[in-house]
Amino acid sequence: MTTPPAKADAAWLAAAIALSERGRARTAPNPSVGCILIDADGRVAGRGWTGACGRPHAEAVALAQAGDRARGGTAYVSLEPCAHVSPRGPCCTDLLIAAGVARVLIAAGDPDVRTNGAGITRLRAAGIEVAVAAAHAPQARAAMAGFFTRQRAARPFVTLKLATSLDGCIALADGTSRWITGPAARAHAHLERARHELILVGRGTLEADEPRLDVRLPGLEARAPQRVLLSSAGAAPEGWLAIRTPAEIAALPGDHLLVEGGARVAAAFLAADLVDRLLLYRAPILIGGGLPGLADIGLTDLAAAHGRWRLTDTRDFAPDRLEVYERERAG
Amino acid sequence: MTTPPAKADAAWLAAAIALSERGRARTAPNPSVGCILIDADGRVAGRGWTGACGRPHAEAVALAQAGDRARGGTAYVSLEPCAHVSPRGPCCTDLLIAAGVARVLIAAGDPDVRTNGAGITRLRAAGIEVAVAAAHAPQARAAMAGFFTRQRAARPFVTLKLATSLDGCIALADGTSRWITGPAARAHAHLERARHELILVGRGTLEADEPRLDVRLPGLEARAPQRVLLSSAGAAPEGWLAIRTPAEIAALPGDHLLVEGGARVAAAFLAADLVDRLLLYRAPILIGGGLPGLADIGLTDLAAAHGRWRLTDTRDFAPDRLEVYERERAG
Repeated sequence: MTTPPAKADAAWLAAAIALSERGRARTAPNPSVGCILIDADGRVAGRGWTGACGRPHAEAVALAQAGDRARGGTAYVSLEPCAHVSPRGPCCTDLLIAAGVARVLIAAGDPDVRTNGAGITRLRAAGIEVAVAAAHAPQARAAMAGFFTRQRAARPFVTLKLATSLDGCIALADGTSRWITGPAARAHAHLERARHELILVGRGTLEADEPRLDVRLPGLEARAPQRVLLSSAGAAPEGWLAIRTPAEIAALPGDHLLVEGGARVAAAFLAADLVDRLLLYRAPILIGGGLPGLADIGLTDLAAAHGRWRLTDTRDFAPDRLEVYERERAG
Repeated sequence: MTTPPAKADAAWLAAAIALSERGRARTAPNPSVGCILIDADGRVAGRGWTGACGRPHAEAVALAQAGDRARGGTAYVSLEPCAHVSPRGPCCTDLLIAAGVARVLIAAGDPDVRTNGAGITRLRAAGIEVAVAAAHAPQARAAMAGFFTRQRAARPFVTLKLATSLDGCIALADGTSRWITGPAARAHAHLERARHELILVGRGTLEADEPRLDVRLPGLEARAPQRVLLSSAGAAPEGWLAIRTPAEIAALPGDHLLVEGGARVAAAFLAADLVDRLLLYRAPILIGGGLPGLADIGLTDLAAAHGRWRLTDTRDFAPDRLEVYERERAG
């Protein structure tokens, strides 16, 4: 059932996964799927990614573009096509069968119990050649991390952002934090906001900084995430949502949550093991005796701290650098 | 006077600079110079680097190896050959002239007032072609950093070592620090000790850890640096040297000082602007509320923290990483 894709197949699958990134943080409760349709002559006939709020699906978009050219062609999809009928639209396996597609290559299986293998079964029953490219599954799951986290853990995918000096401080002892990082790193941090439906701070940050938490990048101003306050007591400002504990993120509307501050909020999420990804912007400065980026997380044994984080990306935003760490999870 | 070296010249000069590294921390008060002698047929005729305590000089070693093959050949040296007569040995310009060398390529001029251009003048007066390859000067000065710092600032070159978690902690709140980094990073830290004549800690580290500060690497056990205690009062253990303030490093015997801990000692050296190089070993762990690596350094304005440090090297010591920063200095 699992076949290593040939070279061209691998390139098209990677492209389909890249398309799936385009809908990130806009498609909940659906996954942001990407689809590329190649006709029988090897040319691109259609490209699609999941629309806002989950409709239309990527396959439907690509098939509509392709028209008759889909017949005998190959569909590359980042996720197994859905097999369940929904009042919101047609099921993609039926659309692919009706269009006469000859092959379907899938990067990752759909964990949704309503599909979970049924899409593959239905396609094969209709005589379509189907392969799952396991080598691409990690990239596909990363591109659709919010959906997979919701399926696995019934909560949003959580990214913790820290901007620190080399000695791990987020401010001088008097609270001054403008600026640790430079314009390039700050612009990238705003781009990350646009990739999240939800952004969260604690009451300390709210009252000290009155943060706007918006996206100040040309053309992306409308992509500001929903603001959320973590606070054990008291009201949130108008237009904000409020939760009292990190565990309450499960009920928030959206599959991607960005935690921006401060040190106690970051520690609360880490202590609850509710951080999946760490964005660490570091400026080449030493502060010394400043405010640490992280309060007590309840660690009592150094050995327990090891083996939890894996460096997955580094970027230069001169003079600063970004490191991305992801939480190691079994299975 | 300054000529860009041809391709082969550049390679031989780089090799001479690499040789100069071999004597690091063993040649004070002399610089650790490297020399490669190429005969008239383009073959290596001799290689040398400064001996222990500064004698013999690199050129003397290379010329002795080359014998008659030096005649008509080229000498590549990391530092301008000395021009002053010393009771401790012959002057290298005289040796090069007597050996009949045709060309001398120099990476960096000698700032010692007794030479400082006089070596070049004497060689040229004897009919030898001399070129200074300015493009190689930074590498040469870095390889002989102790000597150049002693000449420029009348003190040793100071390296500050920190081993921290991603959030900048050097220990749990209770002081536990075994282990933050893994075996590969710790072995490299011992190699760095072997590249220093002097190693320094404060009284807190001395009393908490009773550190041996030795070199636990096969074959390098004898290269343990002289131990120095920074303490405003009280006696040092037997065999240790003691200073009361960072400024007193000027009188220490050796041109390379490694500062190993703890947070207040590190801060004292940074506050005095007496750190030239920062070795930052970082483990992919989060501690949260632990002991910070750096105490107050007197910073009151974030803007003043910027522009002081430049990343010059990164190394992987899986799962840890080393970052090397060097102090930006005008001129």
